[in-house]
Amino acid sequence: MLVKTGTNKTLKGHKLLLITPWAEPAGFREKLAAAFPDLEFVAHVQDWTSTPLPAMEITPETWKDVTILLTFSTLPKPEEAPKLQLVQLMSAGANHVVDVPIYKDTDVAFCTANGVHGPQISEWIISTYLAFEHRLPKYLELQNEARWERGKMLTIEDAVSKTIGILGYGSIGRQTARVASAMGMTVHAYTLHPRPDPASRRDHGWTPPGLGDPDGSIPSKWFSGGSTADLHAFLASGLDLLVIATPLTNQTQHLLGKAEFDVLAAAGGGGKGRTFISNIARGPVINTDDLLEALEGERVRGAALDVTDPEPLPDGHALWRAKNVIITPHVSGASTRYFERVLGILEENLRRVAEGEGLVNRVDKERGY
Amino acid sequence: MLVKTGTNKTLKGHKLLLITPWAEPAGFREKLAAAFPDLEFVAHVQDWTSTPLPAMEITPETWKDVTILLTFSTLPKPEEAPKLQLVQLMSAGANHVVDVPIYKDTDVAFCTANGVHGPQISEWIISTYLAFEHRLPKYLELQNEARWERGKMLTIEDAVSKTIGILGYGSIGRQTARVASAMGMTVHAYTLHPRPDPASRRDHGWTPPGLGDPDGSIPSKWFSGGSTADLHAFLASGLDLLVIATPLTNQTQHLLGKAEFDVLAAAGGGGKGRTFISNIARGPVINTDDLLEALEGERVRGAALDVTDPEPLPDGHALWRAKNVIITPHVSGASTRYFERVLGILEENLRRVAEGEGLVNRVDKERGY
Repeated sequence: MLVKTGTNKTLKGHKLLLITPWAEPAGFREKLAAAFPDLEFVAHVQDWTSTPLPAMEITPETWKDVTILLTFSTLPKPEEAPKLQLVQLMSAGANHVVDVPIYKDTDVAFCTANGVHGPQISEWIISTYLAFEHRLPKYLELQNEARWERGKMLTIEDAVSKTIGILGYGSIGRQTARVASAMGMTVHAYTLHPRPDPASRRDHGWTPPGLGDPDGSIPSKWFSGGSTADLHAFLASGLDLLVIATPLTNQTQHLLGKAEFDVLAAAGGGGKGRTFISNIARGPVINTDDLLEALEGERVRGAALDVTDPEPLPDGHALWRAKNVIITPHVSGASTRYFERVLGILEENLRRVAEGEGLVNRVDKERGY
Repeated sequence: MLVKTGTNKTLKGHKLLLITPWAEPAGFREKLAAAFPDLEFVAHVQDWTSTPLPAMEITPETWKDVTILLTFSTLPKPEEAPKLQLVQLMSAGANHVVDVPIYKDTDVAFCTANGVHGPQISEWIISTYLAFEHRLPKYLELQNEARWERGKMLTIEDAVSKTIGILGYGSIGRQTARVASAMGMTVHAYTLHPRPDPASRRDHGWTPPGLGDPDGSIPSKWFSGGSTADLHAFLASGLDLLVIATPLTNQTQHLLGKAEFDVLAAAGGGGKGRTFISNIARGPVINTDDLLEALEGERVRGAALDVTDPEPLPDGHALWRAKNVIITPHVSGASTRYFERVLGILEENLRRVAEGEGLVNRVDKERGY
């Protein structure tokens, strides 16, 4: 095992392989060489703007000595990289790799990039919610037609005193809470495990300085639990905006379905749906057919979906044209600062390997995140 | 004169006329009657969703005893309403009434609704800026075509560590600063008059509780002055987002023109424009032809315009299809809570009349705001 086996300050015997969509920034290689003089460094650039991801050729020669790998989804077979000890993923979730042999059949440590997505994904959440409430899609259509027409401006609602419920109060949820709170919204947080006291509400993950909710002091109410009743108590708490920011696991597959939309509709007073749903987690957390029905029946106010099920969403799928829906093609995590933040986590983990400390953002393989 | 002439707690002899686009909320009339038992109350509902506003018929009989008027732009001739003492406007600006005889030829007090727009207009500013940066207009087009296509996602920039400059640090600017700061942005404020110390930076206007920047503690830098050199120093301070939130006066007419876009372009490093411009003030604050040229030459990064010059923007005007522009038809101030907030200011001013106190949000007729 790699962690807590004593120090190796120069990272002697280690070979780092980067498989990334961008070349590393100028000076990064030199910075690592100065910090860890014996670390061997290899980098491959791979375009992953297309879906599905292109397969990538890494030679057996390259794989055989790699001890630390930075990657999105390209992984070796266990026998190809016998020295591999640590995989630093570029994604917040690990669900796309849990069935890969090197994840499930070995004790190679996997770490996520949890924390790098807070700013840009919270911006996507706030942006799509406000765009919906302020009718931006309609006004953009009118702009395309060069028509000055105010339409239903008098029914535009602002966010003051509204309530945002955040299902999964991690780095994205915390940064979203910070911005929503500045807009005058009340915050309800939901976590799997109870957070009854200030100590339990602290954030132990990585967050850009000055952002997020490190102390967990923003929410006015905390909900928790793994049962349907627990979830429904949260959904019944009067939510105008429901943010889904939970990892995809066996437990969260189809977490939101007809029964949950019914609870939201009832909490909204039984008339037109009150709750706007924002999904930046993974598509299968929502039952798509049930969501479609809830949207068409206006039992929810609308939805912003950066992830879908199926994904990519096929041409002609009914979800594209559902009522009150905004769909983007899984881009909310994109940021020109993304790589710089991922490399920040990688550096932190290299430092921890060198010092023999426990890794940050390490995946619990049982939980899957 | 109406102010500081002793108390009149029941508002005896006063007649209040409301000319508003909404009927007053249930209970409002009764609430006023309880607070001011002798106040006479008359209300007219007038649809102003269309542009230009429809003319409105108020009978001479109604006008002749009115002492206090709540209106957007419908005003009597001085001889029609000889008892009129106070006009509470429903707009943040008074520029649309400064040439009306009852404003310029009488000492009738005019008060604005300054402060009611902070939340919704700051949401419009944040929403359009983030929508632009996160390519929402493009993704909405792709959604219309039912196409899952990520495009240039890798060039999406988030707001962390970027700088927002706010030209006119009033209620809208302060609430925008609150949200931008929560997103990790640095705030530069610009005011006409210098604000050198904490006392001078306080907000004396009306703001919804818990919002805005009452102490003026959010900006890291303050700029001020009425000269071109003062303005250019602010524009040269490295702005990623420039919010125009200044009243329209003779001084601010065409405040932003070619020279100012040149300063912004130079401050951006001379290459592609760095600054995204957001105008929620009034169209004529910007020279439209110069803005068009700056947009087409990419000397500014883009613009979100809720106001234009001319306004309404005619069909076929080049601005509709300018590069990197988002245009909405002067709707950023709309909110279902707007009227409730305006009535809050009206009530505050009725109370001040009853108590013989100075009015809140009173227009200085020399300044025009």
